[in-house]
Amino acid sequence: MKQKIAVLSGDGIGPEVISQAIKVLDAVAQKFNHQFEYTNALAGAIAIDKTGNPMPDETLQVCLESDAILFGAIGDPKYDNDPNAKVRPEQGLLKIRKEMGLFCNIRPVTTYESLIAKSPLKEDRVRGADLVVYRELTGGIYFGEKGRKGDGSIAYDNCEYSVEEIERISKLAFEAAQPRRKKLTLVDKANVLETSRLWRDVVKKMAPKYPDVEVDFLFVDNAAMQMIVNPTQFDVILTENMFGDIISDEASVITGSLGLLASASIGAKTAMFEPCHGSYPQAAGKNIANPAATILSAAMMLDYFKLFDEANLIREAVQSSIDKGLSTVDINSEKPLSTTAVGDIVANYI
Amino acid sequence: MKQKIAVLSGDGIGPEVISQAIKVLDAVAQKFNHQFEYTNALAGAIAIDKTGNPMPDETLQVCLESDAILFGAIGDPKYDNDPNAKVRPEQGLLKIRKEMGLFCNIRPVTTYESLIAKSPLKEDRVRGADLVVYRELTGGIYFGEKGRKGDGSIAYDNCEYSVEEIERISKLAFEAAQPRRKKLTLVDKANVLETSRLWRDVVKKMAPKYPDVEVDFLFVDNAAMQMIVNPTQFDVILTENMFGDIISDEASVITGSLGLLASASIGAKTAMFEPCHGSYPQAAGKNIANPAATILSAAMMLDYFKLFDEANLIREAVQSSIDKGLSTVDINSEKPLSTTAVGDIVANYI
Ligand SMILES: CC(C)[C@H](C(=O)O)[C@@H](O)C(=O)O
Ligand SMILES: CC(C)[C@H](C(=O)O)[C@@H](O)C(=O)O
Repeated sequence: MKQKIAVLSGDGIGPEVISQAIKVLDAVAQKFNHQFEYTNALAGAIAIDKTGNPMPDETLQVCLESDAILFGAIGDPKYDNDPNAKVRPEQGLLKIRKEMGLFCNIRPVTTYESLIAKSPLKEDRVRGADLVVYRELTGGIYFGEKGRKGDGSIAYDNCEYSVEEIERISKLAFEAAQPRRKKLTLVDKANVLETSRLWRDVVKKMAPKYPDVEVDFLFVDNAAMQMIVNPTQFDVILTENMFGDIISDEASVITGSLGLLASASIGAKTAMFEPCHGSYPQAAGKNIANPAATILSAAMMLDYFKLFDEANLIREAVQSSIDKGLSTVDINSEKPLSTTAVGDIVANYI
Repeated sequence: MKQKIAVLSGDGIGPEVISQAIKVLDAVAQKFNHQFEYTNALAGAIAIDKTGNPMPDETLQVCLESDAILFGAIGDPKYDNDPNAKVRPEQGLLKIRKEMGLFCNIRPVTTYESLIAKSPLKEDRVRGADLVVYRELTGGIYFGEKGRKGDGSIAYDNCEYSVEEIERISKLAFEAAQPRRKKLTLVDKANVLETSRLWRDVVKKMAPKYPDVEVDFLFVDNAAMQMIVNPTQFDVILTENMFGDIISDEASVITGSLGLLASASIGAKTAMFEPCHGSYPQAAGKNIANPAATILSAAMMLDYFKLFDEANLIREAVQSSIDKGLSTVDINSEKPLSTTAVGDIVANYI
């Protein structure tokens, strides 16, 4: 099989962890006789530095012509704490989501028994947690009309959702629940928001098409509590853009394995795969960052290509390295391996 | 001193816990020679049952004529899971906030050493956590224009904030930080939302007036993580209505002491005091609910009346009962006391 992959390494540790994922993909290609063709393109702070634009048209063009996008991380401290700056790296992220129509962000969170000691939660609370967040990514208050009124002393952001926007991601979430534990939890604020009431209506109407899936509704404030008090209750969580931003970040820290969390953003024509951790600038260039989240994101990309055996082999390789304690400093502080060493171990396993 | 107090016991365990708070207030009145005059009024599901309205005009009138409002809890399972129902108990809560102009919700969260074993977080993470959330309560997406468009297939909720709305609560939050650890964290999403950028602008402009307070900015997704990973870093958290709903509920479970958390909602003319826990219908009428959160809410009311010694005595009494293990089943599962017994112990201490 031949696949074209756009590679957007971005900022901070992005380039380092992406190199390891490509090393692993190359090992897969060799073993299974596939062809992965990579095209590098600029995104983030590095793109601002070189072109003045965090997501240059050229990069979007490369993405459009690819079967999938492998994304590192974007963000640089020099742009932090200045949300009023005209050009910021995050705008690149919002732009690629919107322009590529990446409407469905998928973030699986699982417990690794060997990492459970790293969890901020008591181990009996989090052991066995295995959930996935389906977050709407191109609508809601992120992309609604926003601005100032009058003399600028009133600001507004409009949140809007259409039935169609809700249906297309809900379909993916229902389908994801079927081969899992068959439980779908819609997180909303239907006791206050009209958009949430529409989400609830749509999901309720779709539910009979998936009779094997149990559907549950949870207000977002309650969901934020339940994620800490009893995270094992969740299977698939479905939610809108802003709530998904908060709940998926909250979920990402409960198992103590942020360095291992992968994500996918699915659109009609293409899809993007990236680690959940950010650009982690303090570690950039030091060969100490954990490449596992990016390698596991590459595995999600192979799932998307329907190369399931290949994807599972990557997951097996990562799991094996963790079980053996062959990990970077975030996981193994006593005998830490380098970023490249972990990449080599996973690639060699394959 | 003479004070008029509107008492809205509401639903579920509301009436039981409110009775204990009044018992304790009466003990304070006697000891310090104050006069507290109570007027009961209907709110919540019980008000719907009796009048068809979760917040009857008569109740609002009683509140308007009082110096403060003591509030139990509202909500009844028969109205759950039906956010489309025309009349719902929560509407009563939103109505009283708006009509009384209760723009500032204050929720302190502290660790009780004797309860830390109940925390879902590892004890070393949460030990010493001592924070207070200042949540804007009458603006933002809760009260913006909302509705459906076209054939009803598009829903919208508008989020709006004015400089004035932000200033009045920020002032209270800055002032709260001064006698505490002098740290104020604004939680927003200024990398995406225009309203958040206005919040940041306003807070930045006010900061020089409080040179002793260190001001910090945190995106809400990051705040949701930090609340779990490192809650002791927080002192005063300031945030808008929707983010405050989520973050304060998240904060309420980290210390394992939800049954002890009090809250105040401050307005220009009056203020309302209520426990953070809800109506807990499963426990209603069983004399098992923990009255401590309501009693501590009454203490916050005395602070509001500037009766600081009286308020501190209540806190001392509650602390003493907890230290001695004289608690309801949520805290002391081996030898649980009843709701009324705990109320008696606290009142007798005074
Ligand atoms: C950087 C920011 C705009 C972005 C978001 O809020 O969506 C990030 O937090 C994320 O979740 O990918
Ligand atoms: C009941 C609901 C409308 C309310 C809110 O969202 O404000 C509640 O969650 C709260 O925090 O007091």
